[in-house]
Amino acid sequence: MKRYNLDGTYFYCPVDLTLSVVGGRWKGLVFWNLRDGAKRYGELKKILVGINDKMLSQVLKELEKNGVVVRKEYNVIPLKVEYSLTKEGKKLLPVMQLMSNWGEKFEV
Amino acid sequence: MKRYNLDGTYFYCPVDLTLSVVGGRWKGLVFWNLRDGAKRYGELKKILVGINDKMLSQVLKELEKNGVVVRKEYNVIPLKVEYSLTKEGKKLLPVMQLMSNWGEKFEV
Repeated sequence: MKRYNLDGTYFYCPVDLTLSVVGGRWKGLVFWNLRDGAKRYGELKKILVGINDKMLSQVLKELEKNGVVVRKEYNVIPLKVEYSLTKEGKKLLPVMQLMSNWGEKFEV
Repeated sequence: MKRYNLDGTYFYCPVDLTLSVVGGRWKGLVFWNLRDGAKRYGELKKILVGINDKMLSQVLKELEKNGVVVRKEYNVIPLKVEYSLTKEGKKLLPVMQLMSNWGEKFEV
């Protein structure tokens, strides 16, 4: 039986693996909002109405751990931290784009 | 601001709407396992190792409510019930296929 390993977690179905990365509501939305380039923590928080700090920090850490988002710290005062998609993360954008297209049909 | 209405639930982002349909782990996996055609409840339960009856029934009901899965009852004894993707549901298959492709790279 085939197995898929994401950072030490094993899956028997590749869809299951991918859902674990961007399937969650906030994980998917944080990811999607990085599509146009790097964003600071505060910018993400402003866009994602309803997310709290605990959730946003946790989601960013998980996306980083999954290798699809990278955190970059700039050595300036005040501290500047930006998040952006990795090369591997960018390969997931077509998935999210198709999700967006499918959802668009429900516009009211 | 644009709004998207899925069966009375409003979203401000089409990705959010789609994640609510197939983003959950079990919702996504039940959906994906109907890609090759109709399946009976027992068949789904056998494939989806780890799912319990409460979760499987609930997920099928939600997918039906979201208009992507249809339940068909055959008038035979013993009762035969099959689940399959709707026309609208089939339009979501490319999303899941891309998820599968992305996940495939992690095969060990």
